[in-house]
Amino acid sequence: MNQDYIQPNNWSIIEEGFDINCVKASESLFSIGNGAMGQRANFEEQYTGPTFQGSYIAGVYYPDKTRVGWWKNGYPEYFAKVLNAPNWIGIDVAIDGKELDLFTCKSVSNFRRELNMKEGWLGRTFIATLQNNIEIKVETKRFLSLDEDEIGAIQYSVTPLNSNAEITFTPYLDSGITNEDTNWDDKFWDTLSVNSKNNQAFIEARTMKTDFHTCTFMESCFFENYQKIDLVENISQTATKISLTYSKEVQQNQTFTIQKFGGYTVDRNHDKNELISFAKAALSKAMSLGFAKLLDDQKLAWSEIWKKADITIEGDVKAQQGIRFNIFQLNQTYLGKDTQLNIGPKGFTGEKYGGSTYWDTEAYCIPFYMATKDQQVARNLLTYRYNHLQKAIENAEKLGFTNGAALYPMVTMNGEECHNEWEITFEEIHRNGAIAFAIYNYYRYTGDYSYIPEKGLEVLIGIARFWHQRANYSKTKNKYVILGVTGPNEYENNVNNNWYTNYIAKWCISYAIENIEKIKTEYDTDYTRIMNKVQLSNAEIEQWKTVVENMYFPYSKEHNLYLQQDGFLDKELVTVADLDKSNRPINQKWSWDRILRSPYIKQADVLQGFYFFEDHFTDNELERHFDFYESFTVHESSLSPCVHSIQAAKLNKMEQAYQFYLRTSRLDLDDYNHEVEEGLHITSMAGTWMSIVEGFGGMRVKDNLLSFAPKIPKQWNAYSFKVNFRNQVLKVIVTQTDTSFEIDGDYELDIVVNGKSVQVSPNSLVTV
Amino acid sequence: MNQDYIQPNNWSIIEEGFDINCVKASESLFSIGNGAMGQRANFEEQYTGPTFQGSYIAGVYYPDKTRVGWWKNGYPEYFAKVLNAPNWIGIDVAIDGKELDLFTCKSVSNFRRELNMKEGWLGRTFIATLQNNIEIKVETKRFLSLDEDEIGAIQYSVTPLNSNAEITFTPYLDSGITNEDTNWDDKFWDTLSVNSKNNQAFIEARTMKTDFHTCTFMESCFFENYQKIDLVENISQTATKISLTYSKEVQQNQTFTIQKFGGYTVDRNHDKNELISFAKAALSKAMSLGFAKLLDDQKLAWSEIWKKADITIEGDVKAQQGIRFNIFQLNQTYLGKDTQLNIGPKGFTGEKYGGSTYWDTEAYCIPFYMATKDQQVARNLLTYRYNHLQKAIENAEKLGFTNGAALYPMVTMNGEECHNEWEITFEEIHRNGAIAFAIYNYYRYTGDYSYIPEKGLEVLIGIARFWHQRANYSKTKNKYVILGVTGPNEYENNVNNNWYTNYIAKWCISYAIENIEKIKTEYDTDYTRIMNKVQLSNAEIEQWKTVVENMYFPYSKEHNLYLQQDGFLDKELVTVADLDKSNRPINQKWSWDRILRSPYIKQADVLQGFYFFEDHFTDNELERHFDFYESFTVHESSLSPCVHSIQAAKLNKMEQAYQFYLRTSRLDLDDYNHEVEEGLHITSMAGTWMSIVEGFGGMRVKDNLLSFAPKIPKQWNAYSFKVNFRNQVLKVIVTQTDTSFEIDGDYELDIVVNGKSVQVSPNSLVTV
Repeated sequence: MNQDYIQPNNWSIIEEGFDINCVKASESLFSIGNGAMGQRANFEEQYTGPTFQGSYIAGVYYPDKTRVGWWKNGYPEYFAKVLNAPNWIGIDVAIDGKELDLFTCKSVSNFRRELNMKEGWLGRTFIATLQNNIEIKVETKRFLSLDEDEIGAIQYSVTPLNSNAEITFTPYLDSGITNEDTNWDDKFWDTLSVNSKNNQAFIEARTMKTDFHTCTFMESCFFENYQKIDLVENISQTATKISLTYSKEVQQNQTFTIQKFGGYTVDRNHDKNELISFAKAALSKAMSLGFAKLLDDQKLAWSEIWKKADITIEGDVKAQQGIRFNIFQLNQTYLGKDTQLNIGPKGFTGEKYGGSTYWDTEAYCIPFYMATKDQQVARNLLTYRYNHLQKAIENAEKLGFTNGAALYPMVTMNGEECHNEWEITFEEIHRNGAIAFAIYNYYRYTGDYSYIPEKGLEVLIGIARFWHQRANYSKTKNKYVILGVTGPNEYENNVNNNWYTNYIAKWCISYAIENIEKIKTEYDTDYTRIMNKVQLSNAEIEQWKTVVENMYFPYSKEHNLYLQQDGFLDKELVTVADLDKSNRPINQKWSWDRILRSPYIKQADVLQGFYFFEDHFTDNELERHFDFYESFTVHESSLSPCVHSIQAAKLNKMEQAYQFYLRTSRLDLDDYNHEVEEGLHITSMAGTWMSIVEGFGGMRVKDNLLSFAPKIPKQWNAYSFKVNFRNQVLKVIVTQTDTSFEIDGDYELDIVVNGKSVQVSPNSLVTV
Repeated sequence: MNQDYIQPNNWSIIEEGFDINCVKASESLFSIGNGAMGQRANFEEQYTGPTFQGSYIAGVYYPDKTRVGWWKNGYPEYFAKVLNAPNWIGIDVAIDGKELDLFTCKSVSNFRRELNMKEGWLGRTFIATLQNNIEIKVETKRFLSLDEDEIGAIQYSVTPLNSNAEITFTPYLDSGITNEDTNWDDKFWDTLSVNSKNNQAFIEARTMKTDFHTCTFMESCFFENYQKIDLVENISQTATKISLTYSKEVQQNQTFTIQKFGGYTVDRNHDKNELISFAKAALSKAMSLGFAKLLDDQKLAWSEIWKKADITIEGDVKAQQGIRFNIFQLNQTYLGKDTQLNIGPKGFTGEKYGGSTYWDTEAYCIPFYMATKDQQVARNLLTYRYNHLQKAIENAEKLGFTNGAALYPMVTMNGEECHNEWEITFEEIHRNGAIAFAIYNYYRYTGDYSYIPEKGLEVLIGIARFWHQRANYSKTKNKYVILGVTGPNEYENNVNNNWYTNYIAKWCISYAIENIEKIKTEYDTDYTRIMNKVQLSNAEIEQWKTVVENMYFPYSKEHNLYLQQDGFLDKELVTVADLDKSNRPINQKWSWDRILRSPYIKQADVLQGFYFFEDHFTDNELERHFDFYESFTVHESSLSPCVHSIQAAKLNKMEQAYQFYLRTSRLDLDDYNHEVEEGLHITSMAGTWMSIVEGFGGMRVKDNLLSFAPKIPKQWNAYSFKVNFRNQVLKVIVTQTDTSFEIDGDYELDIVVNGKSVQVSPNSLVTV
């Protein structure tokens, strides 16, 4: 049974009633972020019940010493950890000297928590009766500013309901925090200075090993019945914590409010010796704008995001809530401003998985960011990998490759590998393919070829070299084979000739050759520069071609199917439908060897290949492969259902498509995998977006034209989505009877709908 | 370059000259043990240079919490560690107040260390000049009594050479020791009491978690110029250490000697509340026998061992030294007295590999113990596994098997699995085969069928059930396949249809059926008892037969060869000879994925199968497979060269056989793998013995007859070996011209030599 305590709502995530068993799940679900920092929805006031504390700063990580059973050559020295950062949100609250703590209160009522996705804030209201019998009403609102991304703001109001009371607010900063996920119980932070002056407080701290310098800061102001008042602080401080205490006698039914501003300045953006002065500047800006103005700006900034990215669904509020939650969380995680950042699989909502960059970015996130943001954002994500090319070459060298062959890491923070299971680190090499595919996808969508001669070709050459060296000639097969890999279906390890890997390897080399030839002809200067750098001979290219022309693909004549890998048909081919439910999820019920020798698929990589290279195959081929592989797929990867949803929609299996959609869009809200308290599945959220736009909407780009094949689940009255295509935003509205198109831009846009050309003019609705 | 500082000698391991760089290697090579306890050859006196301290008590281990990267279902909770036990050998030595420490002396000369394998003692002599310029001569002798296996004895003599001096001996006990190999820096020992009275001292300590109780004890006596003297102790003690200090003014060139007796009493053998009284009894026995008598008994006990087990080699002192070293170390490790003990891969010489029991015992050690000891010893080793059958069934259940299927652990101390790499723990299931094979081998060699109805059949049934369930029907192949295994060649992981595994699986089931039928006919009572217990139906046996009759074996028509596994021929088949030497050893030079996709073999498991089931194949088949697989074998397992040596001898490839023999017999003495300082490779030493007896001697047992096909390397003048066959010891002497047989027993023995029957009568030499 999945959870169902989240209230359905079109624009907000809402929890009503206080349940200590939901606290950790809600801390994940109500997380907030602004691309530069983020935090779990921990309470501002003390909470002594089960909680998972987390504040995170983008790009600030810790290289925890790798922990493995047996060391194998080539393992990375460290595993990058998402770091719990110093806490600036804390406000201890005392009523007549009694600490407010929802875990130990006499009673809590009218508890309501809201994550307002339209406006970008987190709010909470409740009535609590403390152990001293004083009943108070609390209202809080918190957000991390999109415009001023070093700043967050909290408004926290307390109203005593049954007597007068002395109310004490103690806003504090705390760098004495720990990580839940550590290998060796190392200390991650070294606190350098703690100080306070004029109601402001600062903690300078550096990360051990990586030496990121940060300043965590705060300043507060106070209101009695919404009228600003001045209070004098009482300072107390330890080696890693500073607290400023403010007290006030408050009459019954009068409201005492603190507005606390805080955040981080980081030496990724500033000189490390000036972090306090930049913090002062940030505080001064926050104080002068004030909470209300900052919140207004926040609403405006989010409305700009939704203007390009919103998806509406009519007649199905849970589906509506799901898709907006996904779009909202993706935008909280990554906004595309910084080429050094990327999209961590848990964003700012948890520590698990460490590292920020997986192949998820290229395979799932780039399409979302391409279509909902300025195209520069996707270019920045490509540039991130270009900047890591040298490290990818060094990574390949560690594994015995030569001559500029590049193997991008499975997981990374700074371009170096930081994952350490041999079957993944060394063998899940298909990630290289997604990185090349993203270059192709970017050009296909944006029409901006300039990236390839400027940067992309070097990446493509490094990747082609890797695949060429990684394949070997099999005399028996008289073909080139790729042995010992793990495909996207991670429920197989160390297999030979994973079809997806072989297919994308062949494609990568071909695509590199195609671009070398184009750039040789059309970008003379770039060609010379690149060739001088990479020293690529015609002889080497000829060798590449031999591999391309003779790549082996496992195939079954009997089933008329490409096989996931050599030997797949030797398995006991019992479908998921025929597997007793008590075995599910197999990753919790079965030992690893049993999973490996079963036919069950975590995510179907043959179908992933058909998704990437859809126009290489007929619909008939797609249907055959879909029906076969779907029947063995257990979808225990969060990245799995979206591709199945898209393909089911294409194949007119609308009920299946809808079920897959629900699973992907409400994976976290309904906690399908019983682990939401560890954080959200951020990157798979982009897959949800694809399910609607590419699945139901049937959007594709071919020959510089957007095309659509709109379908609609029978459960919905209508849905709409927006895509930014080559600097014009097209809105698509699909109902049970027709599809309308509307453009927010200055130029006419030719599109293809169900195979027919349609012209959409600015400011006029076209219905098909 | 391998090391070569060990002096060639027929009966002793000798080091001459003191080299601090050899200390740790020598600590391994000169280790002593008596089956019940053992210790590295650490110096008695203080040594502040690099050293690896180790004292070990048989069967006393610690369940260290398992450490892995990602946890997988079915992993064991703990990894059993060989435990460094409290130290009883320590004797601090001071000369005029200056501590003797070979690392900080002004000079050390005439240093000589000897491990006398004929008599079973470790000795050391040297002259040292201390920082206070006093020159002393030191002579030590130490042994662990075979007869009184709770007792060890040390004689330590100091002679001041250039002046009179006050000499202080401080024998001590120390339970404040640590393990080099710990996962979580846990404390392993809890000291319960430390006390001393009347020159005796005791430390009671228990292991954490496993709660083994031990008492470490000592008592000393003193001699001036070999005349016993009485001295009064000065006691000093801490929470984990007790030291008794004895001083004496000694004249120049006079000798002051301490004899220290010490050891352990353990609650594996005694009531835990009476460990001190048993310790007192042991000390009283030692003191009354005295050092000289104990040493005489030691020589006698070793001569009894050699009487059954010695191998002589004439004309090749290094080969002679190598084989005796192997036989000596095997006997130091395991003497067969205790069915709860087994043969740890590092014996009492180091901590690495944890656990005591691998498939090494059944595949390599049992033949040695069968032929050099009373046949009860081999039966005890079989019984060890019988006693663990229920735990093997539980182990299989954890992995999803049912109905009494048994999977023996890869590594164990008490029957529970304590190894944790999925590709080994879950997949290296061939170990089950060796355990069944050992039952067959025991019966074949000893003719003692009684073990099978009494105990063996239940083991065979559990194993047959495992294989039956582990194989699955492949529709494509119309055969039963075994997917996802790691064979003895651990340079392949998660392969399908490893030939060795499939072959031994089929054999195990057949052998179980054969014995069920025999016992049904001939052992009615046992049959009924067993069948009531295991509930085996005819229908189940019929299913087993289907698997036996339809097992799949990968085969190449082109090469006329069984293939190591599915897909082996897809590899880039460059032979070891053609691989640039800079790549070797590949386990140090290559990443794991590169090793896996290479054709290189750690130990050739197809050949291991041909070794076990030699008479299933023709010599021609053997030669074809030997030539093919040997060319890809890198022998990076210590268990590899012996089988190749045996098969090369059989195939008359005598130069190859000799080279393999040298490699296996002097693996540690010459430190081929550059790791001898971590301890010795005990179990592979049995392989060395097999290389001579089964390889050069060509000994086999068939139809209750011993047969021989003697060959001799051209480098040797002659060699001889002894085997205990059905309670008579046969000595075989092979020269360049003929072979002689001699029997130490009361009955005539019919043997087969080069295919012809020969009768050997008691006390007469037969030459063929």
